Amino acid sequence: MTHAAAMLETYPADLGGADLQKLATCIQECFSCAQSCTACADACLSEEQVAELTKCVRSNLDCADICDTTGRVLSRHTGYDANLTRAVLEACVQACKSCGDVCAQHGEMGMQHCQVCADECRRCETACRELIATL
Amino acid sequence: MTHAAAMLETYPADLGGADLQKLATCIQECFSCAQSCTACADACLSEEQVAELTKCVRSNLDCADICDTTGRVLSRHTGYDANLTRAVLEACVQACKSCGDVCAQHGEMGMQHCQVCADECRRCETACRELIATL
Amino acid sequence: MTHAAAMLETYPADLGGADLQKLATCIQECFSCAQSCTACADACLSEEQVAELTKCVRSNLDCADICDTTGRVLSRHTGYDANLTRAVLEACVQACKSCGDVCAQHGEMGMQHCQVCADECRRCETACRELIATL
Amino acid sequence: MTHAAAMLETYPADLGGADLQKLATCIQECFSCAQSCTACADACLSEEQVAELTKCVRSNLDCADICDTTGRVLSRHTGYDANLTRAVLEACVQACKSCGDVCAQHGEMGMQHCQVCADECRRCETACRELIATL
Repeated sequence: MTHAAAMLETYPADLGGADLQKLATCIQECFSCAQSCTACADACLSEEQVAELTKCVRSNLDCADICDTTGRVLSRHTGYDANLTRAVLEACVQACKSCGDVCAQHGEMGMQHCQVCADECRRCETACRELIATL
Repeated sequence: MTHAAAMLETYPADLGGADLQKLATCIQECFSCAQSCTACADACLSEEQVAELTKCVRSNLDCADICDTTGRVLSRHTGYDANLTRAVLEACVQACKSCGDVCAQHGEMGMQHCQVCADECRRCETACRELIATL
Repeated sequence: MTHAAAMLETYPADLGGADLQKLATCIQECFSCAQSCTACADACLSEEQVAELTKCVRSNLDCADICDTTGRVLSRHTGYDANLTRAVLEACVQACKSCGDVCAQHGEMGMQHCQVCADECRRCETACRELIATL
Repeated sequence: MTHAAAMLETYPADLGGADLQKLATCIQECFSCAQSCTACADACLSEEQVAELTKCVRSNLDCADICDTTGRVLSRHTGYDANLTRAVLEACVQACKSCGDVCAQHGEMGMQHCQVCADECRRCETACRELIATL
């Protein structure tokens, strides 16, 4: 059991019929993706061809911030607001899709950090979409 | 001139026809609202009737995180992505509206920090809506 | 291998003799602790005796922000600055110790989310101390 | 009166003899510096000589995250913890000094965004030092 799942299990009030497994997975993926995107932005800065990677750095920075905020919003259940949850998840899907696309291109060109990061973005995007479907 | 406007003026590349005044205002409001919501959450914790304010605290925390992320995304212009900007601004509108509504109710009941915070949320929501209209 | 370790393995430049295992562990613990503290603050808000938990909520919120920032700083290696790394890690040790102490007390009184969160804070504090020792 | 000062004025409990003017200034400078550093990192990415600015981008990103977290911690007063406040302010002084030094060098070489950002970093560093002196 992940720590996000452990925190959900100990929540003292009603979780309103949320799909706990999909929720825990999505929280975990948001934090993992925030870390990977932060690290990928920095790895791009240390590449010789950094000048060709500036759009990737920017996508990484946006995606890190949005995933971080989404992971935080999903970690809160008091006074649940479905409209806000949906809007944040949709922004996160958009960020992960954009960043995943850019990183996947660089991954195919041999940049391993972009490949690892693209995989994280895809997983996070999928987890967000699956959670939206349960709202 | 605010510091956000000063940073926009020194940006070394093309800003692609962005409405610089609306953009600078929106960036500034996002960071102001993030601060106000962080402080309002804490002020609620120090109220005797904190048990009646827990939904307000939660709204404040979400709004602070989303405004912070929105202010960051809007501060970046390299590799501009209109779809991502719009999705983030829409989440921010939703967060500011929800938090502004909750805080306005408490403001009418005499909680001054909620009144100040509600005013910040309204200004930030308006700035986001006006920026969306220019995209 | 965790995703933080995978990102370290693909870093394209010299990591300057860093202890990669301790670094990867510390990054991972920072993000885990940020999530647990965010969730614990919210769980406290949903407890009937929230009025007795306000200091815990505040400790959780500080610890979440500081762990998040520490995890981000540790995920960057370009232009490494040992003084900054040490100062941030020391703030993180302080935050995890304070929050861990408060949560451990509530854990002993039967609040399970505080017990899970206290354990995370202890692990993150230890990981930060062990990383400081290698700098 | 700034919004940070307005929020301090409406805090419902005792602020324990804090120097409210220095506190409000420091909060404001932290959020301003976080914005400037976020924008400066992005402006560097759009410079033709980005390859020579990668250390600056990294300093900017660290400084943005640390200022943001410091501004949040300073916006909370419930369960005040002087040791934590001091540790966070010291990390912020270090981040602002490092980033201010790097940006000032580039400012002298004609990069205006770095000059604006260096000035923000100096103001924030000063505000943090002055607040530490009152603790």
